[in-house]
Amino acid sequence: MEVVNVELGARRYPIYVGAGCLRELGTRLAETGCGAGVAVVTNSTVADLYLERTLASLRDAALVPTAIHIPDGEEHKNLAWLALVYDKLIDAGVERGGAVVALGGGVVGDLAGFAAATYLRGVPCVQVPTTLLAQVDAAIGGKTGINHVAGKNLIGAFAQPRFVLADVETLRTLPRRELTAGLAEVIKYGVILDPALFELIEEQLPAVQRLDRDLMVRIVRTCCTLKALVVGEDETESGYRAILNFGHTVAHALESLTEYKEYLHGEAVAIGMVAAVRVSRRLGFCDDGDYQRVRTLLERCGLPTEVPADLRGEPLALAMRTDKKAHGGSIKFVCLEAIGKTRFERLTCDEIAKNL
Amino acid sequence: MEVVNVELGARRYPIYVGAGCLRELGTRLAETGCGAGVAVVTNSTVADLYLERTLASLRDAALVPTAIHIPDGEEHKNLAWLALVYDKLIDAGVERGGAVVALGGGVVGDLAGFAAATYLRGVPCVQVPTTLLAQVDAAIGGKTGINHVAGKNLIGAFAQPRFVLADVETLRTLPRRELTAGLAEVIKYGVILDPALFELIEEQLPAVQRLDRDLMVRIVRTCCTLKALVVGEDETESGYRAILNFGHTVAHALESLTEYKEYLHGEAVAIGMVAAVRVSRRLGFCDDGDYQRVRTLLERCGLPTEVPADLRGEPLALAMRTDKKAHGGSIKFVCLEAIGKTRFERLTCDEIAKNL
Repeated sequence: MEVVNVELGARRYPIYVGAGCLRELGTRLAETGCGAGVAVVTNSTVADLYLERTLASLRDAALVPTAIHIPDGEEHKNLAWLALVYDKLIDAGVERGGAVVALGGGVVGDLAGFAAATYLRGVPCVQVPTTLLAQVDAAIGGKTGINHVAGKNLIGAFAQPRFVLADVETLRTLPRRELTAGLAEVIKYGVILDPALFELIEEQLPAVQRLDRDLMVRIVRTCCTLKALVVGEDETESGYRAILNFGHTVAHALESLTEYKEYLHGEAVAIGMVAAVRVSRRLGFCDDGDYQRVRTLLERCGLPTEVPADLRGEPLALAMRTDKKAHGGSIKFVCLEAIGKTRFERLTCDEIAKNL
Repeated sequence: MEVVNVELGARRYPIYVGAGCLRELGTRLAETGCGAGVAVVTNSTVADLYLERTLASLRDAALVPTAIHIPDGEEHKNLAWLALVYDKLIDAGVERGGAVVALGGGVVGDLAGFAAATYLRGVPCVQVPTTLLAQVDAAIGGKTGINHVAGKNLIGAFAQPRFVLADVETLRTLPRRELTAGLAEVIKYGVILDPALFELIEEQLPAVQRLDRDLMVRIVRTCCTLKALVVGEDETESGYRAILNFGHTVAHALESLTEYKEYLHGEAVAIGMVAAVRVSRRLGFCDDGDYQRVRTLLERCGLPTEVPADLRGEPLALAMRTDKKAHGGSIKFVCLEAIGKTRFERLTCDEIAKNL
């Protein structure tokens, strides 16, 4: 099991990455000095696969876990299900010294993380991401929250977990489409920060797709290290951390326009990254070679790369304007200069939309 | 206008205390570099009295305020009204650079403060407390939150305001019963931390009750200074800050048992303080003289001092056990040693209940 530390002073925490490390969850949690009463928030799909061994690991460490189930799907990351999680935490008698374990993908992590951040004004949270997307992104960095009908993650908190435990073996049960969507975020790290990672995916894509164990540990660890560095620089996204939003301005707008039903998050990000590189190329920041490389790798993964014709232009511009990062109709947009090199550029939503 | 600073490093903020200083709100907020779009959360009672001049002060400083109304009363400090505040913040287009102004008493401050802490993962909040209770306690220290049917403030966050502005002139429109309830918290500061403040109230009670302007500025400033010192020592109540819970264990249980309908918070605290001193006396920590002084001053104010007979014993013990500070059926109880001197003692809920 490998360890990546997120350096945040008093809120410093480790990310454990390994193959088969889920069985160590209880030991790691007990080591934090956590009280016995803990809650495991998960969804029905993940519960069928991993809940029993998760509970067993916790019980083996003399903890007393209660399972809290939420339905699978982004559409349930809302205030109604948050309210239910609060009710269950109270019913389970979880106290301030207890903990909330988020077992699942980004939806479970965001919702359970926000519940933990706000239940009793904050109880410790442990993220156990079971999707590639969550392992390399969502579970790390302390962004928690829920959606509002008006937009994604409009309600939430910055709250760092006590630790993250990413078991790459859980990726074996992930539907192919979700694995592929997760790859979009892996590629994002390569594009914005790490040319060697980008090349690794270019060269080893078949081995990635068959989930070669050592390769996956290496990739997840690399992504976690990159994200940990960014978050360590800028915990609450006052500046530099916004680099991680590369591709996300258009992605969020697309998800909002399609009511989160059309695209997995990573698929929307793939389209958003191609859009961002295209805007960057039009503005003269990067050359056509980089554009082609990014686009080609995403296509090889089987990811979508184009905004549907009916959403281009005004619908997209309108949706971007309601992004919580929009300010007076413009956005600090992450542009590409070269693979591994970005720049921020304040662009109006219209400028972005018309350059696609 | 006097200034008390809450020393919390990067989250340091000033408390402005004065007579008639509400008119300076806009100037002070504009000085923080806040964006133009701000929301003022208030209730109907306070709106009738102070909303127009609040909005005028903000507009005079070139800010563009939107008013958000919630109903008056603790029973509305819940998830349903929080959801409405989120909706209105989105409708008003408040952005991350904007601000939420909480204009009112503790309910408005807690709910608006929590909304600000969680809307867009946190926008700046300004507390403008208009009740004595909120001026000396609720608005300071960053505790925000809402109630759950299972208990008070079970959902919330620690989130420090950008500043607090307490205008003692607003106390003139406060119903006598609420002013008296606020006095209970003032007396609490004297009892736990400041014998001179306790004596001042003993000697000047009639002048306090007729709201002598200089005296009220002095008292509010003194209480703010004491709370700022405690909060500066221990922002998230990991230890010392719990001293402020003196009288609150029994108070919260009483409020919960009576569904927040019987007592104003300060009234419940008055009963809780007498209970805490009685427990302290029974345990031999303080003498009868201190017990009589505390009880007499609260009675002179016109505050209740006894747990109703039908709630004593088991009902009270049961309600205390669901307190979020309870841990394995026991509570770190704040006992009195002398006026101005306390000690923590871990007591079971049964021990507390049977000593009343």
